[in-house]
Amino acid sequence: MQQYETFELKFNAQAPAGSWVDIDLNATFSCDGDSQTVRGFYAGNSTYIVRFYPTKPGHYRWQTTGVVAASGEEVCEPAVTGHHGMVRRDGLHFKYDDGSRYQPFGTTVYALLHQDRPLIDQTMATLAAAPFNKVRLCVFPKHYDYNYNEPDYFAFEKTDGQWDVHRPCFPFWDALENRLRQLADLGIEADLILFHPYDRWGFAKLSLHDCLVYLDYLTRRLSAIPNVWWSLANEYDLMTEFAADWWPTFAHFIAEHDPASHLLSNHNFIRYWNFADPATSHCCIQGNNVEDVGTFQQKYGKPVVFDECRYEGNLPHSWGNISAFEMVNRFWKACTLGGYCTHGETYLNPEEIVWWSRGGRLIGQSPARIRFLRETLTSLPGPLEPVQSFFPLNKDQVKRRAEHIPPEMADNPIFKVVLTFNEEELARLALAARNFAGHFGDQVFLHYLERMCTSKLMLQLPADKRYRVEVIDVWEMTRKVVLEGVSGQVEVGLPGKEGMAVLATRI
Amino acid sequence: MQQYETFELKFNAQAPAGSWVDIDLNATFSCDGDSQTVRGFYAGNSTYIVRFYPTKPGHYRWQTTGVVAASGEEVCEPAVTGHHGMVRRDGLHFKYDDGSRYQPFGTTVYALLHQDRPLIDQTMATLAAAPFNKVRLCVFPKHYDYNYNEPDYFAFEKTDGQWDVHRPCFPFWDALENRLRQLADLGIEADLILFHPYDRWGFAKLSLHDCLVYLDYLTRRLSAIPNVWWSLANEYDLMTEFAADWWPTFAHFIAEHDPASHLLSNHNFIRYWNFADPATSHCCIQGNNVEDVGTFQQKYGKPVVFDECRYEGNLPHSWGNISAFEMVNRFWKACTLGGYCTHGETYLNPEEIVWWSRGGRLIGQSPARIRFLRETLTSLPGPLEPVQSFFPLNKDQVKRRAEHIPPEMADNPIFKVVLTFNEEELARLALAARNFAGHFGDQVFLHYLERMCTSKLMLQLPADKRYRVEVIDVWEMTRKVVLEGVSGQVEVGLPGKEGMAVLATRI
Repeated sequence: MQQYETFELKFNAQAPAGSWVDIDLNATFSCDGDSQTVRGFYAGNSTYIVRFYPTKPGHYRWQTTGVVAASGEEVCEPAVTGHHGMVRRDGLHFKYDDGSRYQPFGTTVYALLHQDRPLIDQTMATLAAAPFNKVRLCVFPKHYDYNYNEPDYFAFEKTDGQWDVHRPCFPFWDALENRLRQLADLGIEADLILFHPYDRWGFAKLSLHDCLVYLDYLTRRLSAIPNVWWSLANEYDLMTEFAADWWPTFAHFIAEHDPASHLLSNHNFIRYWNFADPATSHCCIQGNNVEDVGTFQQKYGKPVVFDECRYEGNLPHSWGNISAFEMVNRFWKACTLGGYCTHGETYLNPEEIVWWSRGGRLIGQSPARIRFLRETLTSLPGPLEPVQSFFPLNKDQVKRRAEHIPPEMADNPIFKVVLTFNEEELARLALAARNFAGHFGDQVFLHYLERMCTSKLMLQLPADKRYRVEVIDVWEMTRKVVLEGVSGQVEVGLPGKEGMAVLATRI
Repeated sequence: MQQYETFELKFNAQAPAGSWVDIDLNATFSCDGDSQTVRGFYAGNSTYIVRFYPTKPGHYRWQTTGVVAASGEEVCEPAVTGHHGMVRRDGLHFKYDDGSRYQPFGTTVYALLHQDRPLIDQTMATLAAAPFNKVRLCVFPKHYDYNYNEPDYFAFEKTDGQWDVHRPCFPFWDALENRLRQLADLGIEADLILFHPYDRWGFAKLSLHDCLVYLDYLTRRLSAIPNVWWSLANEYDLMTEFAADWWPTFAHFIAEHDPASHLLSNHNFIRYWNFADPATSHCCIQGNNVEDVGTFQQKYGKPVVFDECRYEGNLPHSWGNISAFEMVNRFWKACTLGGYCTHGETYLNPEEIVWWSRGGRLIGQSPARIRFLRETLTSLPGPLEPVQSFFPLNKDQVKRRAEHIPPEMADNPIFKVVLTFNEEELARLALAARNFAGHFGDQVFLHYLERMCTSKLMLQLPADKRYRVEVIDVWEMTRKVVLEGVSGQVEVGLPGKEGMAVLATRI
């Protein structure tokens, strides 16, 4: 047993007579007075497995009940270097179980599991050389433009021509786990999409009962695997055969059946998931509005991940043809505000193997820049949060400002006018006045100037601290120190082009 | 007297004893049973002037009353080539009095009137070579960053150290008229800004009475000059010393006192002017949201001019540093939807002579592309209107669509979902699904692909007509015929870069 790694007990016993999912097998793991009971699963071929995710080293005793009655002892060794454990929510950010920071830089290969082996191998090789540490991928196969290949197997077998959720297809789950392990070896979290609407096989038309049987098996089998996140769906709001109240039911079911409490969220087409849901760990957003990171942070108090802000590519579909620069631009915008962003690539080729869904090779120019961003952000002493706007940008802020007008604002005509604005006017002001500036206490101030071609930036730094100021070109991937040991208001010269950032670090 | 040109009667008489504005001088012009009475103005130096704008040729009789009693006859000759008359609203578009189309391609030189003569001359020479046919300029001088020069004269003289609106400063008004004439000679409309908040002299703090005296003189003096538009203000909502109800009062006053009924609108900071105001001819908008052309058209049924969508330049101010490409991009977006856009240039130089406000030279790269756009649009047989969206994008449209679901949409899951969206979700859908496509009946279809790097466009043309299809590169300023004589659904190959358009013209 190794801290932060899946521990597995395997038993042989007679195959279940009825459901292969709803089996009677539990195991309790105890160490130093703590104990946790986990459910086992049937893995086919008269094999039963129980998995456990140990978060602390020590001397464990375990005991199973049900189909198999067994017990034993294990010494859990401290984590091996490179094994940080599961990713957890840490306020508005994330951290691994070992306390180290995790900053998601995701990509999508939605139908990764349903490609043939050579393509999967190529995808894994690409990921090994890419800057991404999270991949969004679907359990069920995808039926959509450029995605019409028939997979070899599915999550379930059929009985009488109908999907039989009580009969998991073991080769499928074995393959899924192999993919999860491969991703783990590359340091990549698997943001596993449990449902989606792009379907010709019937998985988007399962009954509520069948969905819950599927989630039962899923949680029994995968909960002890560290690098798994639960994404209830991709575009849940397009699943017209699922009633709206199924989704909180799914979230609640998983929360009850996942003893390791993996991260969980749900991805929208247009209607955002209710991120206030207690089982939901973070905001998972489809939208172009990466400038709204702070709004989501304030509303939900959870990390904000723009898991689809369109894709770098050249598809005719409006969501699949932003430029590499614009993809990089959106990453910098989201990250400067202390949010996170997800990449996807949609360059069409004659084979119609498009990275965004099927994998293969990356040919775009954004991944190198996303690596540069990742290196830049991981070089900082802590996670960023948005710098407060000069103007109140919603009615609550207006009310607070009107009650406590800052003395230096008392005669500012714009300030006076803004206090009279309605919500719609404030929203337009927020767009006009938006400012991609983040800070980590007084240690770091990052201004990302996005498409502004300004020739200089006036930077307001604390007067009693000293800073090094760097000018960053997010496309050329350069960092240049332009000022050393400065304080208070400083003017930073800039080249007057898009994609510049200014980073002030306390020295 | 020439059709479409200012006709002027000049009289000598004793200077007014009291107000130089509120004088008793009217003239009635009659022709073929039509007659119009206009007010005269005092021009200083014991000179009284009456001006008249004739819209039809013929034999006129005129008679004055008041300070001067005189009469006479004039033959109004038909318009000389190049004189089209005043610009009028024509539905959602504009036309000259002679019926020819006018499509505004504006720029701003806000403080043009308050610069020294060499700079004004340079500005006029620049305009002569530029693609613009409208300039926004202020009557009152401007006090703002890069605009601190003291003008030689102002609209009024002072009495006892206070602005005396009853004593116009004649050299100022003479100079203003010279500028209007120079602009007219260049085919440029003067979008004259009557008030603005950027002021150190007191013009933003005039009383309501003084404002109306000023507007009285202004309309007496300038109403017969064809190339004038009334812009009540720049950023009227930042004029904190003016009560909100003054603005409709100004609009109404001008409508009553301007016999030629010039175009009139009002320009916002954030709070849009009420374009439903009956004296308002068109929507004049500050905003980045050029994609909302259709929304304004539907709401007000008037032409839509984005008179400030930020400026090409490198200022630190957020409104003054978009790239040349982005300026061009916004022009194409607005114009494809049948709206109009206004340029401004804000490159800082050591002399702080920035085109946007003071004039001088243009150094940006957008004007050449705006010329190309202008040439492209004027080559079309008529003005564009937006192509209707596939999706309903507001609650009214949802209601109509839900009552009459198009048969081909009955099984479309996205369509079904969209019918359940609330206003905020519809607004986000509108942003996600926005489509810069305009048409002129079935004669022209223009698709502007803005920043989409698509490698192909599926074009849906009428099946029973034949079209020539051109691919346009808005930055490289090229038009290339790619298909000839096509109908119905056609695929148009594209280079997969930003700033492409596809134009289908009926042959």
